[in-house]
Amino acid sequence: MQTVLDVAAMQSRAYRHKRQGESIALVPTMGALHEAHLKLVRRARSEASVVIVSIFVNPTQFGPKEDLDRYPRTLEADLRKLEALDVDYVFIPSAKQMYPEGFQTEVSLKYLPKHLCGLSRPTHFAGVATVVLKLFNICMPDTAVFGLKDYQQYRIIQQMIADLNLPIRIVGVPTVREEDGLAESSRNTYLSPEERKKAVAIAQALQRIEDAIVKHGKRDAGELIELGIRVIEDAGGRVDYVAVADPDTLDDLQQVQKRTLLAAAAFFGNTRLIDNRMVDLSETVEEKDAENR
Amino acid sequence: MQTVLDVAAMQSRAYRHKRQGESIALVPTMGALHEAHLKLVRRARSEASVVIVSIFVNPTQFGPKEDLDRYPRTLEADLRKLEALDVDYVFIPSAKQMYPEGFQTEVSLKYLPKHLCGLSRPTHFAGVATVVLKLFNICMPDTAVFGLKDYQQYRIIQQMIADLNLPIRIVGVPTVREEDGLAESSRNTYLSPEERKKAVAIAQALQRIEDAIVKHGKRDAGELIELGIRVIEDAGGRVDYVAVADPDTLDDLQQVQKRTLLAAAAFFGNTRLIDNRMVDLSETVEEKDAENR
Repeated sequence: MQTVLDVAAMQSRAYRHKRQGESIALVPTMGALHEAHLKLVRRARSEASVVIVSIFVNPTQFGPKEDLDRYPRTLEADLRKLEALDVDYVFIPSAKQMYPEGFQTEVSLKYLPKHLCGLSRPTHFAGVATVVLKLFNICMPDTAVFGLKDYQQYRIIQQMIADLNLPIRIVGVPTVREEDGLAESSRNTYLSPEERKKAVAIAQALQRIEDAIVKHGKRDAGELIELGIRVIEDAGGRVDYVAVADPDTLDDLQQVQKRTLLAAAAFFGNTRLIDNRMVDLSETVEEKDAENR
Repeated sequence: MQTVLDVAAMQSRAYRHKRQGESIALVPTMGALHEAHLKLVRRARSEASVVIVSIFVNPTQFGPKEDLDRYPRTLEADLRKLEALDVDYVFIPSAKQMYPEGFQTEVSLKYLPKHLCGLSRPTHFAGVATVVLKLFNICMPDTAVFGLKDYQQYRIIQQMIADLNLPIRIVGVPTVREEDGLAESSRNTYLSPEERKKAVAIAQALQRIEDAIVKHGKRDAGELIELGIRVIEDAGGRVDYVAVADPDTLDDLQQVQKRTLLAAAAFFGNTRLIDNRMVDLSETVEEKDAENR
């Protein structure tokens, strides 16, 4: 495993692999690696002959009052974990190399960021899209692997790839959960033991909404959102949003449709956590048919 | 010479050439090809083994009151000219393929477009940057060739390439001029014979400013701009701007510096024309030294 700190060095190595006809898979991360990241890396390992993991806590995707400064940095442990997974390159650029003096180009999307997390983090997704495009151009992946826990991010990168004609396939990996159901996140380390116990409410809220849809035939989005808010608030969480949305446009739905995204963001203490579930009613019907057989 | 209408077909052909270790040069155009375009193509021919010329009248870089609908289309003549120059591919995508339903990604720059033409064409350069990035991703050039007549565009693409870490070298080709000095432009065809005669004033204005700097030692930007405006207005042109600017930032200068961009835009009739000259005082001194030897 090679650790590469320099943008030009990473790009020339990636270029050499491409010229030799090798395929590259990239896993962009902000470090503080946990089991869900490792699942992305294993998926990347199965997709390409060369695996690059980038570790970059991208300042431009944090708002002025957000947690850039206290975002967990665990580089040594991260490198050990990646070494064990047979990663070829860990790319760790500095902010100064990524954003040199005079830097001024931004990639933004018109509609997808105007939903869900984008409403309370208005500059976040332009920061994400821009840095991911830079990482794509530096690392030249054939395949890019993202976690579906950040579904809106996944959807935005997918749209950017299509809109900009990038010759890259995006792979979304299902959310990894703790035993009680809490989605894995580097930000879970911020939680006090008490907050940690309560935080599972965000996953439970979405599970309860899914049950209301699948088991109880509920279809009215307003009613479902109220249910989700109640579950989170009853546990002592402060809701940012609970949404019932179209998975492609992220537009709010009035009624549940065949494929429906359930998404939520909430604070436990000062820690903002997100989660989502996809409800696919066509699948459910088939499963039920299968059970009945 | 192959004419390619389909985005995916162009991209797979470009990809194949890259995999074979060939170099690609791209000349992005809006068609209506004249001698200055052909100079770009000849330059591209000397730079790479595969030459792609794109012809796409990009709707997103025209403002609502601009000349998108009447922009000259001369495809047959264009193809004949390119055939004669040993071009490998002419890429002619449709607007529908370039901007399919749901398209929403935009590349914008924070500072460079807030000068010169960007002031009267506020959405122009985001349209240019976005379409050029798409063309880069589709055609995968090692070298991209642009005319320096559109200096601000050249500078913006150069900055975008650096900021987004695109593995592309940009080449700027000096402006081609008619016998009287008017810069070649597809929009010159809009001019009536009388307007055509007057239009040379924009080139003359910049030449007069350069003379004032080099021969008469003038340094005050305000005075030089006034001189330029007078020359254009005396010929019956309506000035959009005459600028004395830093060639890197495009910021207005108070005083001429070692390298100074002189730029102007003006209307003759309904036709908006632009032109620029670079004044390099260090070069001039050397030339004088050479003359004195």
